[in-house]
Amino acid sequence: MRIVRFEHQGRIQFGTRRDDHVTPFAGVAGGSFTALLAALADGAHVPQATPIPQAQVSLLPPVPLTGKIICIGLNYADHAREGGHPIPTYPAVFLRTATSLVGHGQPLVRPALSERFDYEAELAVVIGRTAHRVRAADALHHVAGYSCFNDGSIRDFQRKSTQWTMGKNFDRSGSVGPELVTPDELPSGVDNLRIAARLNGETLQDGSTREMIFPVADLIETLSAVMTLEPGDVIATGTPAGVGFARTPPRFMEAGDLIEIEIEGIGILANTIVDEAPDAAEQESHRP
Amino acid sequence: MRIVRFEHQGRIQFGTRRDDHVTPFAGVAGGSFTALLAALADGAHVPQATPIPQAQVSLLPPVPLTGKIICIGLNYADHAREGGHPIPTYPAVFLRTATSLVGHGQPLVRPALSERFDYEAELAVVIGRTAHRVRAADALHHVAGYSCFNDGSIRDFQRKSTQWTMGKNFDRSGSVGPELVTPDELPSGVDNLRIAARLNGETLQDGSTREMIFPVADLIETLSAVMTLEPGDVIATGTPAGVGFARTPPRFMEAGDLIEIEIEGIGILANTIVDEAPDAAEQESHRP
Repeated sequence: MRIVRFEHQGRIQFGTRRDDHVTPFAGVAGGSFTALLAALADGAHVPQATPIPQAQVSLLPPVPLTGKIICIGLNYADHAREGGHPIPTYPAVFLRTATSLVGHGQPLVRPALSERFDYEAELAVVIGRTAHRVRAADALHHVAGYSCFNDGSIRDFQRKSTQWTMGKNFDRSGSVGPELVTPDELPSGVDNLRIAARLNGETLQDGSTREMIFPVADLIETLSAVMTLEPGDVIATGTPAGVGFARTPPRFMEAGDLIEIEIEGIGILANTIVDEAPDAAEQESHRP
Repeated sequence: MRIVRFEHQGRIQFGTRRDDHVTPFAGVAGGSFTALLAALADGAHVPQATPIPQAQVSLLPPVPLTGKIICIGLNYADHAREGGHPIPTYPAVFLRTATSLVGHGQPLVRPALSERFDYEAELAVVIGRTAHRVRAADALHHVAGYSCFNDGSIRDFQRKSTQWTMGKNFDRSGSVGPELVTPDELPSGVDNLRIAARLNGETLQDGSTREMIFPVADLIETLSAVMTLEPGDVIATGTPAGVGFARTPPRFMEAGDLIEIEIEGIGILANTIVDEAPDAAEQESHRP
């Protein structure tokens, strides 16, 4: 199944997308991922409401981002090398916050503070069943589905300290979507999927999930040894080579650019870039 | 005002604590921090329900941890030095997840994977009003209150990669509480409060918030330039010198230990240490 989450007339719902319509699941509020999982588990048929033209809805991240958003750095050897890092023997893990992410089709915001706004094509894993100290062999049973992820990064802020958090958490600097694709739609293990980033139609990243140093099942084992993974938690599994800062000359995103993340069998996550509105920021900081 | 959040007979509520009773606020569900803020803003008098003996409730983190939990590393010069780090010129920022934190009086869990479980006494700041690009001079108006924070750290996992996230996010390895103390109860700027950690009654950290390299208002300016701070977001502002790994010999926490974080005017956050139950973990990983 391929699941979208969207806002229509102020109401957030889950549903499916077909051609140019979305069809809400009847009676499943879009704020609760566990409600969706319960509805899907109840049987093969989820009652559907009347289709809505897609032009009338805003697609959101396919899961409500109320849990952990765990990101893996340097999980493709060629990308570690292009950044001058050694090949990791243990995953480099950082976290993103919900305020840093938008859905498919929503604008990504280049902040006024930096001109070094970079893309990173990643496979996102969404947890569907609580995972605490699971072994890699059992790990994929805990996955609800997969999506595309753009781990948008403000490179100068990523390097202002040893910790990458600030450069990875600018408001609306990353994206996830368009759909949550359940594992039955994909080859087992999702370990041989082409993954690409295109900027204004030009392919700048072109790799395969088989290049991951720590494949999805291994990541779930390693992460769940430390922290309990809960339904709706997201793992962004790292990016292949070809990011903007490592290119000659460097290639950063600017207002008007279209960035697309495509993963074979999962979909295309597309966002346009806008500049942060300086006036709005000033007004907010002066608000009484 | 000094606010607690607690569970009683399966229901989570906000309230106040006096002597050995807690008194719930009538009609304010404990899952929504914005509901609490609205009730407090409505007037000086929040309707109160019947007091409950404290022995009958479990204190929880004083705010529901549904937003960002932002932690500042190396914010006291003596602590940066004891860890062999240069004095930072920009805050080192990492994030914690809700699964990593418990409230006052709940056990902290030493994981089976490590014997290097360390304490860190910190002042926690809870955001009460949305902050986007605020200046330091205006920053404290965005604070709902303060609490004590124990940024419990698994030191070997903190150093497994350049990113500290894993060592800072073991399940139930840190704590926050006991109360949310509103700014009117404290000296303006909270910049001269004694802050200490005691392990089994022995003082191992003893500093003052005046030693912070980046004071609270500066942190809010720096963080809100990157990410919008929302009501209920927590900022843990770093720890003074005296942590366990930097002592000679090193001093780590073990099952049965009592760790207390005390901040002048704010309170004492006390937790006992228990070992992770290996049986439970094994059962969970084998669960069908």
